[in-house]
Amino acid sequence: MQFTALQIATLIKGSIEGNPDAKVSHVAKIEEAGEGSLSFIANPKYEEYLYTTNASIIIVNDTLEVIEKVKPTLIRVKDAYSGFASLLEKYNEMMSRSGKNGIEQPSYVSKTASIGKNVYIGAFTYVGDNVLIGDNVKIYPGCYIGDNVVVNEDSKIFAGVKIYDGCSLGARVIIHSGSVIGGDGFGFAPQNDGTYRKVPQIGNVIIEDDVEIGANTTIDRATMGSTLIKKGVKLDNLIQIAHNAEIGDNTVIAAQTGVSGSTKLGKNCIVGGQVGIVGHIQIADGTRINAQSGLSKSVAEPNTALTGSPAYDYKSSLRSQAIFRNLPELQQRIFKLEEMVEQLTALLNNQGVKQNQ
Amino acid sequence: MQFTALQIATLIKGSIEGNPDAKVSHVAKIEEAGEGSLSFIANPKYEEYLYTTNASIIIVNDTLEVIEKVKPTLIRVKDAYSGFASLLEKYNEMMSRSGKNGIEQPSYVSKTASIGKNVYIGAFTYVGDNVLIGDNVKIYPGCYIGDNVVVNEDSKIFAGVKIYDGCSLGARVIIHSGSVIGGDGFGFAPQNDGTYRKVPQIGNVIIEDDVEIGANTTIDRATMGSTLIKKGVKLDNLIQIAHNAEIGDNTVIAAQTGVSGSTKLGKNCIVGGQVGIVGHIQIADGTRINAQSGLSKSVAEPNTALTGSPAYDYKSSLRSQAIFRNLPELQQRIFKLEEMVEQLTALLNNQGVKQNQ
Amino acid sequence: MQFTALQIATLIKGSIEGNPDAKVSHVAKIEEAGEGSLSFIANPKYEEYLYTTNASIIIVNDTLEVIEKVKPTLIRVKDAYSGFASLLEKYNEMMSRSGKNGIEQPSYVSKTASIGKNVYIGAFTYVGDNVLIGDNVKIYPGCYIGDNVVVNEDSKIFAGVKIYDGCSLGARVIIHSGSVIGGDGFGFAPQNDGTYRKVPQIGNVIIEDDVEIGANTTIDRATMGSTLIKKGVKLDNLIQIAHNAEIGDNTVIAAQTGVSGSTKLGKNCIVGGQVGIVGHIQIADGTRINAQSGLSKSVAEPNTALTGSPAYDYKSSLRSQAIFRNLPELQQRIFKLEEMVEQLTALLNNQGVKQNQ
Repeated sequence: MQFTALQIATLIKGSIEGNPDAKVSHVAKIEEAGEGSLSFIANPKYEEYLYTTNASIIIVNDTLEVIEKVKPTLIRVKDAYSGFASLLEKYNEMMSRSGKNGIEQPSYVSKTASIGKNVYIGAFTYVGDNVLIGDNVKIYPGCYIGDNVVVNEDSKIFAGVKIYDGCSLGARVIIHSGSVIGGDGFGFAPQNDGTYRKVPQIGNVIIEDDVEIGANTTIDRATMGSTLIKKGVKLDNLIQIAHNAEIGDNTVIAAQTGVSGSTKLGKNCIVGGQVGIVGHIQIADGTRINAQSGLSKSVAEPNTALTGSPAYDYKSSLRSQAIFRNLPELQQRIFKLEEMVEQLTALLNNQGVKQNQ
Repeated sequence: MQFTALQIATLIKGSIEGNPDAKVSHVAKIEEAGEGSLSFIANPKYEEYLYTTNASIIIVNDTLEVIEKVKPTLIRVKDAYSGFASLLEKYNEMMSRSGKNGIEQPSYVSKTASIGKNVYIGAFTYVGDNVLIGDNVKIYPGCYIGDNVVVNEDSKIFAGVKIYDGCSLGARVIIHSGSVIGGDGFGFAPQNDGTYRKVPQIGNVIIEDDVEIGANTTIDRATMGSTLIKKGVKLDNLIQIAHNAEIGDNTVIAAQTGVSGSTKLGKNCIVGGQVGIVGHIQIADGTRINAQSGLSKSVAEPNTALTGSPAYDYKSSLRSQAIFRNLPELQQRIFKLEEMVEQLTALLNNQGVKQNQ
Repeated sequence: MQFTALQIATLIKGSIEGNPDAKVSHVAKIEEAGEGSLSFIANPKYEEYLYTTNASIIIVNDTLEVIEKVKPTLIRVKDAYSGFASLLEKYNEMMSRSGKNGIEQPSYVSKTASIGKNVYIGAFTYVGDNVLIGDNVKIYPGCYIGDNVVVNEDSKIFAGVKIYDGCSLGARVIIHSGSVIGGDGFGFAPQNDGTYRKVPQIGNVIIEDDVEIGANTTIDRATMGSTLIKKGVKLDNLIQIAHNAEIGDNTVIAAQTGVSGSTKLGKNCIVGGQVGIVGHIQIADGTRINAQSGLSKSVAEPNTALTGSPAYDYKSSLRSQAIFRNLPELQQRIFKLEEMVEQLTALLNNQGVKQNQ
């Protein structure tokens, strides 16, 4: 199957620079693209490939400046990454197996569960009592859907996801393999003899529409009430969200980050990987937190950028980090100063003596 | 179902402050509690809600000082969190489904396995050869219990837990979904050609009584002997415990922490989230380790508090962290000093010249 | 079953020091070894046990210096750890159950899947359309092998592993329980209204020969092309490898480390636990990265050692860390200097006045 630059430009509403009849038969990363490849450049780091690639067509940002001769046909759009994403979606639809459907055997579906139309339930998946599964939901093999769980329409749950009883998923939610939704929150009351008494966790997890959750991520149920993952949130792999936390609309969190109990993140935050966020704090909308940071205090000002552990203002923190590297030199300068001041003092004392004579 | 303050106070042996006939029908977090709610305040951060909440009854600590007029009925106990926990337990018992029981089909139970009384084995759970399952054990769907595993009475294994052959669990152990017990330790002998040779891991994991393990946590089997999780230990989600490690009685570890091979933690330690602990060290009883710390040396003194990476004494470390933030200013002061000392030196040299004239 | 020192020395080509007829019946860690135990000492930290252990035979390095009288028979080999590993392998073979075989029921194997000879497929394992399984492959219970996956000969996949469609595994690959291979890369294009649009991930994961992957690790499929885990790589538990990353031959990575998208690690690198590596960078062959480091820049020079977050040269970084601990004292010295310089200035001004008089 081949497409011309003109066909593609029409699909993604782009403008053509070069030969509108250039043809592509497959997609490839710009580093690996050869004759007949369609590729894209969104990250300036990859612009150098523009002049060396053998790709036939490249989707680029409107703002890209071309400083040398370019062989491939360019298609300019406002946002090359989004434009390419929308093309991939169409490609994905065309190429994909017609879509899994029906209830594979053996599986376990409680008689009291209610299953919508056009649903796929893979083999070895367990659907408990009173579960509600919406239309077009796909649940891959080996999943566990506990009693009283709700999964709304068009959601996709990949193989081996475990959802504890009473949790609820919105529409168009995607959960990748191995993630655990609704395990008990980590709540123990210390006793006088040094042991701990488990605090029952009787709340649940609510995941709103259009959320995507990566592989092997864990989201604990609330002690009471709900742990809340709001609309459009994107969580990467191996993330920990503790009991009663709340993640605001369209907030994006990279892999291996942990959010402690009862902490509330605002909307449109961007959190890097391996970040740790302490419990019981509030993070304002639009906060950006650098990878590996440790947040121990609330962030009141929206759109703040933070880094470090403990984290604070991004720019100041970078300055301190730069000086940290120079500490050995700085220490030497202090030692030098001490020596000079000592000499000066000695000299002055000496003079003093002379003057007193 | 409604309860009065008097009934609750009797159950948890508390003293009533306010109307003993106040009625509640459900539990709620203090931030969300409305008319008819029972709530609790244990953390001083939440005391402010005391004066604004619409909760009908609140369980509080004996020591709480009330400084304004309070609308809800208070029930004072020594430890509000424990008091509330014990109430939740009773509530949980009343509300919970009468409890899963029996062997769901399809499941796989080896003929050589021995299954106690009143056991639940969920569908798609695999029970290998010579496995011993004690009375009242609940194993949720989709678990894998390898050959020769022992699970003692009253333990609860949630959906999708994998336990490799030869591991052993005490009584009243709880393991949450997706955790892996007894995978091979990470042991490889470097060869001359740059490859690695696997060192067979022929030990196991022993988990003692009353341990709770969160979701997607991994505990590796010992190379030889046993990786040991002792009585009353509580592990959160996504924790890594490497081969031959030992975690002492009642030690509590928060999410995403890693303990490297052959390291031994003492009793009653409290370890924050995302902590890393190097291999082959000993950590004394009662050690407290702050979140995101990195421990590279043994801790000999019991009840030490540590923070930082590399971690050391909590208070000193906080002082260094505070100065770290001020490094840019401190560097300026050093530059200023250098300038002043240079001027002084010049001045003195000048004077010296004059005096020599 | 008993073995003599002579038999063991012959097997691993070692030289005997002591009684060649000494007998052992089992293996044990040196700290726990008693009469009749075979043990080994490779790490100098454990040499002290040489003089106190009751082990009957110990395998040691050629280079070990014995400074006191030693009771056990020693067997010296060039590399005690490798020697012991090879013995454990033989022991493991002798002791192990004759090896799982055949297809347990119930399992799900697509009619279009092709299954080699001498294969084990555990109960509740799912094998999708067009899957190719090589000879002697063992797939434990509860695994998910998606459509079009290839698993080459002699590979071992433990319980509950999930492999998404289209991924490919080499020969002699080992994957531990709960790991997820080929989940979607974390790619979302930000939209003007603050929401994110999913970028379809149409690539796959390729795992080459002799790779071992720990428990609950996640390796995401490429957006386009392949995420690549090359020959002989060893990954520990709970590791995150993002889309389009590449890990070079024989590189070893410890638990809880994360490698971001499109980053390429060279051959023979050694990466500690809880390390974070930013996306789109290149790490030279033989790079060693200390635990908990954060790498934000490419490493061009092979065999560099790095530590810290942000990470840089190991030795310089340790110096800065040492001074960091002394910051409070260093700050005091700066304050002291300021005081002295002020006094000197005052003194000189004073003198100046005097001299002007």
